[in-house]
Amino acid sequence: MRRTRFDDAACPIARTTDLLADWWTPLVLRELFAGRRRFEQLAEELDISRAVLTQRLNRLIDEGIVEKHQYSERPARFEYRFTEKGRALWPVLSAMWRFGEDWMFDDAPAVELVDAETGAAVRPEVVDAGTGRPMDSFRSRVRLRRPSVD
Amino acid sequence: MRRTRFDDAACPIARTTDLLADWWTPLVLRELFAGRRRFEQLAEELDISRAVLTQRLNRLIDEGIVEKHQYSERPARFEYRFTEKGRALWPVLSAMWRFGEDWMFDDAPAVELVDAETGAAVRPEVVDAGTGRPMDSFRSRVRLRRPSVD
Repeated sequence: MRRTRFDDAACPIARTTDLLADWWTPLVLRELFAGRRRFEQLAEELDISRAVLTQRLNRLIDEGIVEKHQYSERPARFEYRFTEKGRALWPVLSAMWRFGEDWMFDDAPAVELVDAETGAAVRPEVVDAGTGRPMDSFRSRVRLRRPSVD
Repeated sequence: MRRTRFDDAACPIARTTDLLADWWTPLVLRELFAGRRRFEQLAEELDISRAVLTQRLNRLIDEGIVEKHQYSERPARFEYRFTEKGRALWPVLSAMWRFGEDWMFDDAPAVELVDAETGAAVRPEVVDAGTGRPMDSFRSRVRLRRPSVD
């Protein structure tokens, strides 16, 4: 069954949904962020069918999220590397981490997010870059952008 | 086909994926955040089948994200209202907005996110609450939580 696509929607949330609300995709991204860049590593770590993993990786290549890179000629070996666009998904996954940590566990999760340099625990928070205020659904509105006048 | 479930995974991203990577769910949430709280409004705005919308709303109720609230007795009318847990998803959708705005459009999207009180444009950014530093995949690591010693 072909799903309704949201990739030409007017709304930025819808277009990101088209990419991320694909079952397994956020977990494939998580593993790539954790440094597992080879097909066999991803397949083993996720316990995912090879067909599904292939489909998801091809989609990420098509979207310019990852690039397939040959890192050995004999034997021919490939790995998947994030593009700049791909790395920009880490904040989204971080926000998902925060929600999951706060709301989806009865006790604290067994894993924690830390700063690689300082070792300090990291607590992702989504703020308005302009004011530093945490995003609040009560203060947020969507409006039509005014055409810019040059 | 029953999907692999991630709702008992050790990882907070996986549990949030179980909730959000359900096709349509982020858009149902977006409409609820936009104040469309009645079934008919949601069905019309999203152009979604009633069966799919019912399934998604029931899932959101089961997860404690929304509550079904009767706001009129004659005729009996209901609306879906966010719980505190549900409102905590707005930062996640905000982070999706930011990614979509930056990376999924050739030109600027036709809509923008603004502060309801000041009217100023809002730019969601995911930072570490402790340091204020933007989340950066190169500085982020996941480690096993040390047991707390009381």
